[in-house]
Order: sequence, then C-alpha cells, then structure tokens
Amino acid sequence: MTGGDAPVRVGLLGRGTVGGALVDLIAERSAAVEGATGRRLEISGVLTTSEGDFETILEGADVIVELMGGTTTAREHVIAALKAGKPVITANKQLLAQHGAELFAAADEAGVQLRFEAAVAGVVPVIRVVQESFGAVEFDKVFGIVNGTTNFILSEMASTGASYEEVLTRAQELGYAEADPTEDVNGADAAAKMAILARLAFHTPVDFEQVPFEGIESVQPDDLAYAKELGLSLKLLGVAERFDEGITVRVFPCFLYPGHPLSPINGPFNAVMVQAPEITEVTLSGPGAGGTETAAAVLGDLVSVVSGEAPVHAAERELPVLSDVESSFYLHLEVADEPGVLAQVAKVLSDSGISVKSVVQKGMGNDARLVMVVHRCSEALFMEAVGQIGGLGSLRSSPRFIRVIEEVFV
Amino acid sequence: MTGGDAPVRVGLLGRGTVGGALVDLIAERSAAVEGATGRRLEISGVLTTSEGDFETILEGADVIVELMGGTTTAREHVIAALKAGKPVITANKQLLAQHGAELFAAADEAGVQLRFEAAVAGVVPVIRVVQESFGAVEFDKVFGIVNGTTNFILSEMASTGASYEEVLTRAQELGYAEADPTEDVNGADAAAKMAILARLAFHTPVDFEQVPFEGIESVQPDDLAYAKELGLSLKLLGVAERFDEGITVRVFPCFLYPGHPLSPINGPFNAVMVQAPEITEVTLSGPGAGGTETAAAVLGDLVSVVSGEAPVHAAERELPVLSDVESSFYLHLEVADEPGVLAQVAKVLSDSGISVKSVVQKGMGNDARLVMVVHRCSEALFMEAVGQIGGLGSLRSSPRFIRVIEEVFV
Repeated sequence: MTGGDAPVRVGLLGRGTVGGALVDLIAERSAAVEGATGRRLEISGVLTTSEGDFETILEGADVIVELMGGTTTAREHVIAALKAGKPVITANKQLLAQHGAELFAAADEAGVQLRFEAAVAGVVPVIRVVQESFGAVEFDKVFGIVNGTTNFILSEMASTGASYEEVLTRAQELGYAEADPTEDVNGADAAAKMAILARLAFHTPVDFEQVPFEGIESVQPDDLAYAKELGLSLKLLGVAERFDEGITVRVFPCFLYPGHPLSPINGPFNAVMVQAPEITEVTLSGPGAGGTETAAAVLGDLVSVVSGEAPVHAAERELPVLSDVESSFYLHLEVADEPGVLAQVAKVLSDSGISVKSVVQKGMGNDARLVMVVHRCSEALFMEAVGQIGGLGSLRSSPRFIRVIEEVFV
Repeated sequence: MTGGDAPVRVGLLGRGTVGGALVDLIAERSAAVEGATGRRLEISGVLTTSEGDFETILEGADVIVELMGGTTTAREHVIAALKAGKPVITANKQLLAQHGAELFAAADEAGVQLRFEAAVAGVVPVIRVVQESFGAVEFDKVFGIVNGTTNFILSEMASTGASYEEVLTRAQELGYAEADPTEDVNGADAAAKMAILARLAFHTPVDFEQVPFEGIESVQPDDLAYAKELGLSLKLLGVAERFDEGITVRVFPCFLYPGHPLSPINGPFNAVMVQAPEITEVTLSGPGAGGTETAAAVLGDLVSVVSGEAPVHAAERELPVLSDVESSFYLHLEVADEPGVLAQVAKVLSDSGISVKSVVQKGMGNDARLVMVVHRCSEALFMEAVGQIGGLGSLRSSPRFIRVIEEVFV
C-alpha cells in the first residue's frame, strides 16, 4: 500500500460487537500499528443500518473492513470495493464459503488483498499459517474444532452429564451460544469454515454446498457416558482430507481417543491441525470467538494490508469432492435383553466385512444397551449394515452412531 | 522483490541436514512455489567448507539462505548480504540471539527482509504469528517448550522411570539428541530462542547474555515420581513476561498442573503460548526439529520474501530485564526420620512468609523424603529460605527445588 506518511483510511461496514471492539482496538493500539507499519490507522467512515453511505465511505477509504454479516449486501459491497482497487478484510465466513470463487477472482483481477483471518477459528491464526507459513506445502489433511459453541456444549455435557438442551441454555446464558444457535449446533457454521480452509489448503474451489455437515443436536448424555467407559471424548470436527482421487470436506461429531492432540481442547476453544509430510503436524489453538479476539484478528489483517502485498488466493486446480470415505464408528443399540441379540448384530457386521474393536453391554430390566466401536470401514457399507441392524426384531429403537478417529498421536 | 518472470536465485550457505533437505524441497515444491508467488526458485550457488566462494554466490543471488551455523563467519556473511541489499533467511538462533541488534539494524538500514522462522520452534510458525498475525498486540507473556530434545528426555524419564543418563543415551540413538547435547540439555539453546521471541514480542533489545538458563541435567527420577503423586508434569520452559517495571526472560525446568495446555505436550515436540488481553491465549505446537521440517520453515520464509515486503523488526523501546520475580516451587528434602523435622522446615518457610500448598512425606529406614509445593513467593526470598533449610542439622543432602506453574487453564 502506497501513501507515505498519511494515515491509512479504514472504511468500516458494520459496527456490532466485533466492529465496536475494532474501533476501540485501533484507538488503543495506534502506536503499535504505527511502530509495525510506519502508518497510522484512521476510521474514515462507518456504515450501519442507520448511518453512512457506502459509496461515500468507499471513496474516502484506503481499505474496507466488512463486519456487517449476511451474504447479499455484504457481497455487493465487497465486490464493489475490490473492483475499486481497495483491499478488503472480512470476518464473514458464509460470504467466503458461498461466494469465494467470485470474491477471489475479483481480488485477483484488481490485484488487491482480500484477507479474512477472523472468518475461521477466531483469533487462532490458521488462515495465515495455511496461506503464508505453509504456502508451498502440499497438505494431506486439515482438521479440527472450528466452532467454540459446540465445543463448549460437548465439554459441559461430558463433564456434568447434563442433557444437550440444559447445556445449550447454560451456553446461551454465558454468551457462548446465540439466541438462535441453529447454524452453530447443526454444523453449518463449521462447514462454512471448512470450505474456506479446504479451498486454501488444497488450492481448489470448494463451496459451502459441497460440505456435508452433521450437528450435535441429537447427541445423548448416555453416548457420552458410554464413551467415557471406552476412553473417548466427543468433538464436533471439521475434516478436509486429500486422497489420490480427490478431496473430502465434512463436519460431524466424532469421538477421539486419549492422546489425540485435540482431545484436551475443552470449552469454547478452537483448534486446527494441519498435516503434510514435510511438516508432520502442526496444531494451533485458542479462543474461537469473542468480540475483542475477533477484532484482534481483523487488526492483524489490517497491519498486513498496510505492510505490503501478499499473494492473492487463486484456485490452481479442480479436485473432485468425494462422498464415500472410510471411518471407524461408535454404534449404540437399545435391544431386548434376550439370548442371541449380540450374535445377530455381530453376524450382520461380519457379513459386511466390518470388524468390531470393542463392545460394552449392559442390562436394564428387559432391555439392554449394546455399545460398540467398529474399525475403519467404508461409510456406505456401514450405513447399509446399520439399516439391516435397525430391521432386527430385537431392536427397541433406531440405532445411533457417531464417527471415531482411531489414530493415536504421540 | 522485483524481477518479473525470471527465477529467484537462492544463494545457499551451508549444506548439512537442513540445507540438503531444502535443496530437495525446492525441487519438489517448485510448482507450488510458482503457484503461490508467480516465480520459480533456483539454487544459484552453494557455499560449503569445501566448495563455493561467498562473494560470487552473493553477487549471483537474489536472496541468501544461511544454514551454516556458528556466529563468526555466518555473522560476516549475513551482514554482508544485508548491506548488499539482499534479503536473508536464517535458521541460526545463536546468531540472532547474540548479534540480533546488529543484524536487525543492517536489515532496517538496507530496507530488506531478514526472516528466521526456522530458528525458533522448528516448523511451528511462532515467529510469523508473533510478528505478523499479532504484530500490533501488546503481549503479556510468551512462553513454552522450545527444545524438543529436553522435552523428549523429560517425557521418557516420566513415563519409564529411567535416569537422565539412560534416557539421554536413548535420545542420542533415536537421533533426538546430538552427540554433544550440551546446548540442548543445559538450556542454552532454549535461552537463545527465548531471547529472539522476547525481542519480537516486546519490541525491545534482548540479548542471549541477558537470559538466565537452567537445564535438566540434575533432574532426578524421584523428582518425577513425587511429581506424579502431586499430579505434576515436568517441562523445560522458556518464559518471557512483561511487568510494569520491565521484562523477564528465563529458561528453567518447571512443573505444570494437569489442565495446563502445555502439560500434554510430550516427546520431541515444541509448543509456544502467547498471551495478551485482546487475544486471551493462543497455543502453537508441532515438531521442534528434523531436517525436512526445518527446511519447510525456511521454504515458507522464501515464499514470503518472494511475495512481498514485510515489516523489518526494529526495537521501539528499551525495557529493563528484571532479575527477581515470583514463582511457586517444588522443594525436595532428604531428612532424618525423627520428630520435629517437618516443624523446623515449616518454621523457616513460615518466618519467610512462604506458604505451603501441599506436602508428601515418606519414611525410608532412618531417612525420610519431605516433598512439598509452596505457593508463589519472591524467588530471592525462597532462595534465602532454602539456604536456611540446608543448614538444618536434620538434612541428609542439599535441598533440591524446581519451579511450578500454578495457574490451571480451562
């Protein structure tokens, strides 16, 4: 960015929690920014629903910060800013996940920066690490806990034994969950973040629509209780993985064995692991949200925009997004407590070539709980086997299952 | 960096493990580098003890990568390269820790980049995160496990009960410790890394000489056994902390309570935590060494140098480096198993205003072990009290102590 000693004029779109925190932070850290970049930052205009005119703000700004949210007006404004040759910083994950191709193309064409560290994993600097530190690395896998609300809920359910509904209410009281928590708890928020991460990590277009997601709404306290007996902890994971034939990008609740670097991540935290042969694995963790933390990520992007030019992301190839992959599963069955049920279930699995790793069986009056973990197998094959098991006469309710990550790290 | 479509000529000083891995990696990742930067990398010259002439290599290079080690010739070459207006990338922590002021000034004057991600924490991108992601953040504390050799040794001692000497031999066999492990095990390597981190985090000159360090050579298996009873794990920590009056930068073995984000970091891994009000805390972890991993960090720096200009570090202030700080301590005493010994020890501590958090006492024939953890107190005060306790007639050997971090994180 050129301009000598004049202040860098920041046009701010949206002044909610993050926008307000950013205004404060820019004032507070003014000397530090000047120390790092040689330039001062100055808020030259603010657009809210009640004040400001976008055209005027755009004209008077050297850089646009989009914190308004949504994918309609935000998209128009970001595209307009990029086309006008103004660098853009945004924290808007759905905008990037749904319109990434268009936005990156506009930034590329104008030759200006589009930065979005705050859009994924809050203040955890995963975007910069993937794009810059490891910009020439061929990742095998990028995965982690990218939604703090659901991680808080799952940690609380595991430690207190309380139900999903009880803990969600508590999370809302503590400000860890929004009044309408749908996008967090159903996995859509994590899916948008994983679409962005997969695009950067694999240099291929990935849209939100290509990311299947499952949430945590149907997780039962007894899944967590049984899991504890099996030594497992439950996380909502986003996983982007590269295979010879293409990539997979998915979000699902998943059990981890102890020793996995993500299993100690509790509460409203995020953590992302990146893996590649030349770096082995690197893990980044920290608070996933919070107005000040998100604003700090935006400020980091502002400092980078002022300091110089970074590569604009451009998709270099189009990798197919695969649907069937292999997973290990936890399977929870409520069955009649009568002889032969385990044998029936075991036969279905065995006929499908699915091998059982561990089983816990407990009687409860006439009924019993049969909980098992099966080794890695094709997900399609597993779903078919579960369908057959669901049809057995001795089943008291529909089978429940949750994926398990088997690998144990050092 | 200017130059259109011509390849970027890399002058390589040193071709040991890391240098060799870098040459391979540049060949292997050639397309990815070109995708990220629009330029190809080309090794234009290599200086080893048996081949190459520095002046010729410098003249024919656009960027110099220093992987020769040492602080004499390496320093001359790096200074010469910077003065010639060539960006420099180095993995040489002692060079930066001992001559940082001179090197940063030379880079600043020439207006070229000096990058050194590989010098601290291997492939864990802590330098970039401190300098760029959080370039405008006022850190309170930057600390962590920055030496993989000692972390491997301590993990192994804790899990096997073996002695320091036995585990060191094993580490050497596995390639986790060098034939001469002195700088790793005595804390000097970690101290150099902490000098670099403290300089960047606090924007103040910090030299290696200002960093007091203790190593792990005198850690006894029974310290680890007692620690297990107290629920503690032992790490060699580097800690850089900011107080109102100045900063402290130190390296020492230290016990952590369970739940601390660094306590699950085992084996030859590194992990660094950065804390500031606006980011709460962010933790980065990954492999601390390895030729390919270190080369990957150098390649990341090369990509950044080719992509554009980043801020050159310049000290903005001179903060005093403090000596006395507060710590919590583990204290290990071998005493005569006779009445009143605990009372004597307790009186010394109490007279010094030091309060005891927990005690384990065990008889062993005529002798007993008295192991305790005391709450945070002035280190000077604690050392004085330990001196007095050492003079008690009932002591069988000199008191041993290890610092403890009391805070438990989520």
